[in-house]
Amino acid sequence: MNNQKILQDIEAFVEARDWDQFHSVKNLSMALSVECSELVEIFQWMKEEKTNAVKDDPETLAKVKDEVADIYFYLMRIVSKTGIDLEEAVVNKMKKNEAKYPVEKFRGISKKYNEL
Amino acid sequence: MNNQKILQDIEAFVEARDWDQFHSVKNLSMALSVECSELVEIFQWMKEEKTNAVKDDPETLAKVKDEVADIYFYLMRIVSKTGIDLEEAVVNKMKKNEAKYPVEKFRGISKKYNEL
Amino acid sequence: MNNQKILQDIEAFVEARDWDQFHSVKNLSMALSVECSELVEIFQWMKEEKTNAVKDDPETLAKVKDEVADIYFYLMRIVSKTGIDLEEAVVNKMKKNEAKYPVEKFRGISKKYNEL
Amino acid sequence: MNNQKILQDIEAFVEARDWDQFHSVKNLSMALSVECSELVEIFQWMKEEKTNAVKDDPETLAKVKDEVADIYFYLMRIVSKTGIDLEEAVVNKMKKNEAKYPVEKFRGISKKYNEL
Repeated sequence: MNNQKILQDIEAFVEARDWDQFHSVKNLSMALSVECSELVEIFQWMKEEKTNAVKDDPETLAKVKDEVADIYFYLMRIVSKTGIDLEEAVVNKMKKNEAKYPVEKFRGISKKYNEL
Repeated sequence: MNNQKILQDIEAFVEARDWDQFHSVKNLSMALSVECSELVEIFQWMKEEKTNAVKDDPETLAKVKDEVADIYFYLMRIVSKTGIDLEEAVVNKMKKNEAKYPVEKFRGISKKYNEL
Repeated sequence: MNNQKILQDIEAFVEARDWDQFHSVKNLSMALSVECSELVEIFQWMKEEKTNAVKDDPETLAKVKDEVADIYFYLMRIVSKTGIDLEEAVVNKMKKNEAKYPVEKFRGISKKYNEL
Repeated sequence: MNNQKILQDIEAFVEARDWDQFHSVKNLSMALSVECSELVEIFQWMKEEKTNAVKDDPETLAKVKDEVADIYFYLMRIVSKTGIDLEEAVVNKMKKNEAKYPVEKFRGISKKYNEL
């Protein structure tokens, strides 16, 4: 994926509309959570199996794509405004998760690390 | 950013713990929204200006990094389970947004496209 | 339920801590959504059937009670700060829903009113 | 507020549409969080001061009323499906909060109990 190009497009989109003035990190976190809920709304009354078969349901898949894109948009805006190195952040968090959820203890178990 | 490597690490992390059984698209959408709210929680009582200065506040920034990583993790899991091409989805949604929010009409305006 | 007494207790709790300064309607909406996500988190990896049997699972039920109470707390704060008459708001919205979802058309159907 | 009457109306509304089949506690928690996000969406680009003046902005207030009613609807459905005594839950949680946030320590402070 060509992240660099997409990040530039997102920044250009915002700049052309002079929207950065609305995009405080606080407001962006709200907008991000709203977009996530629009994804949740698609699945809220569906059986789990049906949500796993979304690949084969073009109408629903089209909606999911749009919501995933909106989530990515606001996530990248937050990354941009906070100066976070996303790759580094993910790699570091994965290491923490490896430590919090050791394979031998959490294999096949969905509990939270502090609930086992 | 080396997406391909990170995506592989995420999949390997899940597989090692046999967690895919819990990761229906429905459940992943719930987990994603929960992680977003953990980001919102960081900012809920902060003034907007302070959230914009998070770069210079190492303690808060560390928390933000972890939440952003968790959000990315679940977003990538949803992308993987639904077979979405994220780059294509973002490019297409940006085109729709360009049409919904023409520059001349929405410059400096934060209203929703259907509220103006 | 003795709403009046509980509302007074909530207001007194906030006043004693001088927390109203943090409780802008914006911030309260964020806090409310965070509490909802804490409820969602309890159920995110559970099968639907298990969530319906929460009555018979005292450990989970205790967590649900606390989250439901937190949601109620922030909802009542929003009601108080906006001067909304909750009873009137619910009665009016129920009437709108009756019109949007006529029984003969939506019986046994979980689609949104504008998707049928 | 006449809770008993409203609870009966909510149950009758659901029963007339045969919607209880969709209302697992899991699904209701999702729907509740979605409604909260619709409230958040109203405020996401607004300045805090403006959200506090929503009382004097009839157009926005009307939207807020509808979202607050939807949140109440799903919260009451969860209360009904889990058999929770809401009054008792709120009173108990308030006691816990009194202990977690002693007045002398948290007066004028918006930190979380475990962050001070």
